[in-house]
Amino acid sequence: MKIGVFDSGIGGLTVVKSMLEHSLFEEIIYFGDTARVPYGVKDKNTITRYAIEAVEFFKNFEIDLIVVACNTVSAYALDEMRESSACPVIGVVEAGVLATANALKNKDSNILILGTKATINSKAYENALKTRGYKNLEAKATGLFVPIVEEEIYCGKVLDATLEHYFKEVQKPDAIILGCTHFPLISEPIKNYFSKKILIIHSGDAIVEYLENEFEFTHKYDKPTLKFFASENPDALKAVAAKWLSL
Amino acid sequence: MKIGVFDSGIGGLTVVKSMLEHSLFEEIIYFGDTARVPYGVKDKNTITRYAIEAVEFFKNFEIDLIVVACNTVSAYALDEMRESSACPVIGVVEAGVLATANALKNKDSNILILGTKATINSKAYENALKTRGYKNLEAKATGLFVPIVEEEIYCGKVLDATLEHYFKEVQKPDAIILGCTHFPLISEPIKNYFSKKILIIHSGDAIVEYLENEFEFTHKYDKPTLKFFASENPDALKAVAAKWLSL
Repeated sequence: MKIGVFDSGIGGLTVVKSMLEHSLFEEIIYFGDTARVPYGVKDKNTITRYAIEAVEFFKNFEIDLIVVACNTVSAYALDEMRESSACPVIGVVEAGVLATANALKNKDSNILILGTKATINSKAYENALKTRGYKNLEAKATGLFVPIVEEEIYCGKVLDATLEHYFKEVQKPDAIILGCTHFPLISEPIKNYFSKKILIIHSGDAIVEYLENEFEFTHKYDKPTLKFFASENPDALKAVAAKWLSL
Repeated sequence: MKIGVFDSGIGGLTVVKSMLEHSLFEEIIYFGDTARVPYGVKDKNTITRYAIEAVEFFKNFEIDLIVVACNTVSAYALDEMRESSACPVIGVVEAGVLATANALKNKDSNILILGTKATINSKAYENALKTRGYKNLEAKATGLFVPIVEEEIYCGKVLDATLEHYFKEVQKPDAIILGCTHFPLISEPIKNYFSKKILIIHSGDAIVEYLENEFEFTHKYDKPTLKFFASENPDALKAVAAKWLSL
């Protein structure tokens, strides 16, 4: 299977990392829209327009599946991408919701959903979880987490003050959905703010779980072909990929 | 005089605020490229391409002057904008350098230059100040300041920790250049971190000083016509304008 992975920037590499750990694909073509990143502060029309352009980009390759590794795009533009695409399109939001439902049988559990302003405003996670019977949901836009990770701040006073800023009035949750692919890089401090026992839903692992559920994988590919494309500065993207994915 | 003001997003409104305080113009047409904001994390080619598109946008109006209210664009794409434009184009970097030189006669003064990653990497302020004989320059990319202001955080622990993060090893300056139009919104905490006596160079005030130096203004326009355009969600831009400019 040859797949395309789309993200607004570099965050989707955390999803590729999970895929590589499970050796599912023969070839992964990654496209990051680095010239227009971030999407999380933009509106539905703009996000949808950019997402359809990504589908067009992937038409240059014979791929079997598009994985949308960006929560904001998954929340807003999945239907429109499916209309434009000849191959299936799956997104991290539906995968995250399924992973939450699989892991959390008690419908009274407190679930904290974190994401960009756009993802949280979309209510995509909230609505899907409500449909599945979960009632105790709190959604919080944590807009500073992305720039903090991009500044390579993974611990210390800035992060501690930011966690306190967002979480001081939040009830201790049973599970936290990391509804942005940058957030796994600070999942430990997020988890530790509340307690080490909290269930963390991670978009990359959720996608792998979803894919293994939906498709039959008969081969393991230990050395898949990886191709990285970016709308600006592909070398910078490749450098981050080499670091995060230990290439 | 009818002018166009260009910024990557909303930050340039702080420049419009200074212009309104001085009643210089009959009509101000503001264009914020909100669909692709922020520019400060992007590279020269991309920034230049977007800047030339802004020049094209202003050709829809009969304007006498384009003011680039974005430090990142001023640092990278001013020459290219001038080549594409029929009217003069001035930028906040050259204005900021002139304002610094006018205010700071002692060439041994310590000057701290703050900006986005792109603006700082360009060395635009540094090179221009060196040419004017200033030697003691320190430039610091403060990437979290823009998202902090966009989160409407103007004081408190997150900002204090961030100031400490960036400034703990910085020598106390005589002057600080706020090389990003978002930064005036947190100029007091920045100033107070070091001392209240520091000279602050503000892009909006610098542009007014530059304009008054270069052009002869014979009228005062107390109620200029203001028009706001944005590449996405112009209503959101207009709402911020109404708030920041007390319209």
